[in-house]
Amino acid sequence: MAQLVVMYKTPKDPAAFDKHYFATHVPLAKRTPGLRKYEVSKGPVGTPAGPSAYHLIALLHYDDVAAIQQAMASAEGKAAVADLQNFATGGVDILIFDTRAV
Amino acid sequence: MAQLVVMYKTPKDPAAFDKHYFATHVPLAKRTPGLRKYEVSKGPVGTPAGPSAYHLIALLHYDDVAAIQQAMASAEGKAAVADLQNFATGGVDILIFDTRAV
Repeated sequence: MAQLVVMYKTPKDPAAFDKHYFATHVPLAKRTPGLRKYEVSKGPVGTPAGPSAYHLIALLHYDDVAAIQQAMASAEGKAAVADLQNFATGGVDILIFDTRAV
Repeated sequence: MAQLVVMYKTPKDPAAFDKHYFATHVPLAKRTPGLRKYEVSKGPVGTPAGPSAYHLIALLHYDDVAAIQQAMASAEGKAAVADLQNFATGGVDILIFDTRAV
């Protein structure tokens, strides 16, 4: 399996972020081809030392990194990426990697 | 469920990191109480724009954030945290959050 981890830094208006994220962005991202599972953080995103700089973390699961690249290159993926500017006002960090259980 | 995401920045000696991580750190972390699943990145950790600053990402699954806090406060958790200085020479970012499927 592989993970697309999308880490949203705290936005200017968290309530507006949440409204747009769940009403608009999640449906867009769910349309990307090859998506197997989609999880989001629930409640605060912390660190061992206290609060983090992040408001929300999304974990999107695909079969492998090639599938993530294909998803992002698809029309649906481009629409989801283009939508980021509509709500991700704090900035966003994205990581892509294959995974294996240990 | 909840996630403990451990993001290791590229260390000074990646081969030494990998050797210590899999031979010593994984067995220590696996002993933490409440651990349900343990995944690591396989191959490079990328971003949509190219390589990331990270060498390895670990995804440790527990029932909830309270279980993660209990795991980190346990003797086994303290041993795993104390071991970080033995190999995580590039630094480490840690995030803790509950998750839900969307």
